[in-house]
Amino acid sequence: MRRTRVCELFGIDYPIIQAGMIWVSGGRLASAASEAGALGLIGAGSMTPELLRHHIRKARSLTAKPFGVNLPILYRHAEEMVPIILEEKIPVVFTSGGSPKTYTRRFKDAGCVVVHVTSTPTLARKCEDAGVDAVVAEGFEAGGHNGRDELTSFVLIPQVVDAVKIPVIAAGGIADGRGVAAAIALGADGVQVGSRFVASEEASCHPDFKKAVLNAGSEDTFLVLKSLVPVRLIKNDFCRRAMDAETRGARKESLSELLGHGRAQLGMYDGDLAEGELEIGQVSGMINEILPAAEIIHRLREGYEATLRHLG
Amino acid sequence: MRRTRVCELFGIDYPIIQAGMIWVSGGRLASAASEAGALGLIGAGSMTPELLRHHIRKARSLTAKPFGVNLPILYRHAEEMVPIILEEKIPVVFTSGGSPKTYTRRFKDAGCVVVHVTSTPTLARKCEDAGVDAVVAEGFEAGGHNGRDELTSFVLIPQVVDAVKIPVIAAGGIADGRGVAAAIALGADGVQVGSRFVASEEASCHPDFKKAVLNAGSEDTFLVLKSLVPVRLIKNDFCRRAMDAETRGARKESLSELLGHGRAQLGMYDGDLAEGELEIGQVSGMINEILPAAEIIHRLREGYEATLRHLG
Repeated sequence: MRRTRVCELFGIDYPIIQAGMIWVSGGRLASAASEAGALGLIGAGSMTPELLRHHIRKARSLTAKPFGVNLPILYRHAEEMVPIILEEKIPVVFTSGGSPKTYTRRFKDAGCVVVHVTSTPTLARKCEDAGVDAVVAEGFEAGGHNGRDELTSFVLIPQVVDAVKIPVIAAGGIADGRGVAAAIALGADGVQVGSRFVASEEASCHPDFKKAVLNAGSEDTFLVLKSLVPVRLIKNDFCRRAMDAETRGARKESLSELLGHGRAQLGMYDGDLAEGELEIGQVSGMINEILPAAEIIHRLREGYEATLRHLG
Repeated sequence: MRRTRVCELFGIDYPIIQAGMIWVSGGRLASAASEAGALGLIGAGSMTPELLRHHIRKARSLTAKPFGVNLPILYRHAEEMVPIILEEKIPVVFTSGGSPKTYTRRFKDAGCVVVHVTSTPTLARKCEDAGVDAVVAEGFEAGGHNGRDELTSFVLIPQVVDAVKIPVIAAGGIADGRGVAAAIALGADGVQVGSRFVASEEASCHPDFKKAVLNAGSEDTFLVLKSLVPVRLIKNDFCRRAMDAETRGARKESLSELLGHGRAQLGMYDGDLAEGELEIGQVSGMINEILPAAEIIHRLREGYEATLRHLG
């Protein structure tokens, strides 16, 4: 697999990023992904600041290779996370949600590489103006929180590539080597893979959530809670109630009440498959096996090479 | 550009299909696409049976190469169209909407190649069981009528490829050679391109609709009327009223009243950019020039070759 600008930027072997995912990617998964030549990301958005420090140190004890942290800007602990990330000398920070201006300067001044997640070409240009080193272009098919304009990976990737000069990392819908090759064909410099790593041995989520991902077919997710923050979930009891409420025209306040608090933890970490939020991408229909992170990365690379041979 | 199973099936030079589009693809566009080595399709869904016959004969007067007809199964004139298609000895029929069982046997018995449009792997398998020769896998980003499960091209194409043995034609989000290469990387045997041909010299729609497509940015379309038949439109006055009604939880009956009759003609053929339905894909943000159909096909091929060289 050919090296790209993304490999140079992060100091990694392959242009593959394991997405930072709440309740899923702690130090164990991130270190396994980095150790296998990709970039592992710790998902800070479900941790307390002290737990983030614990996971960073755990990852460092498991690999000498670079790994990063994903920091959701609107997370209630975000501000407290910044000094921890800086003290622990994390080389790469992915920020998501909110304005790319919020933390880019502070992290860049400390020598971090900064990447921001975008869902439109317009936002990608704002990220470039804010001084980030690269952008993630994340399509409508992605799991978890999602943009309001519903641009899919197929149309988002080339338009972000045309809109900015900095490297573009494609995300949303990629679970095998065909997807990696398609993203590179559309102009991406690398890929961020989330859902596929949920069904990894090292993911810290509940085993029942992993099984739910294996069982989910291609038509089993939906983007809901659009007037709050749109989120793609497996269609379980909770998701169907949210879908029904939206069809009935429920207002923001009543959706917020329906959602309540702690549903992501309830579903993904505690394993309540009926009432919890089960964040996963449309690509779940292509995920049928729990694998070690290193094997997932190996298969992405092998599948990519096989696809290039097929394209001939 | 390498020949694929789709070239053999249709007797064409390049695995590119110009989508059959209401109010857009008459005999002039279809013959131009076929004459340039692709497969042109006449969109029967906005014609009277006699007008279809007129367009078929017009196309035949303009090219000796094969072209086809797209027949929306639920169209009120569909049944009357069948004998005309058979009498005129059309070699390829694309059916869309409704059950693939409806007409496949009749067309196959008469020697036609039959293709059905699908939006899920499950429906693709039903098409194969019904005896069609190929399927179109059309993603959420596509313009016009769309599936309810909202699967995007990026996840739909490989899952349909894995689900069936017959050739798979990718549709939705393809307007340049990068998109063609990505679709082939995901396993497709060919591509169906719609929106890009709306902005062609030979398209029969209103010039002001073509200009609206050039002006539409990447965030300017939305999928609306989901409880009727979901349709992707440019966000004009009518589309925004439909979006607002859906946010308020409008029922099917009131959406149907809001839609009324003849809005597609009003927008795309009569050129009422405020009140008509303007059916176009998310890829409209990448379309900036009205070109002859032959030049569009030339650029798709050149861009595909350039992408393969880039993939190296």
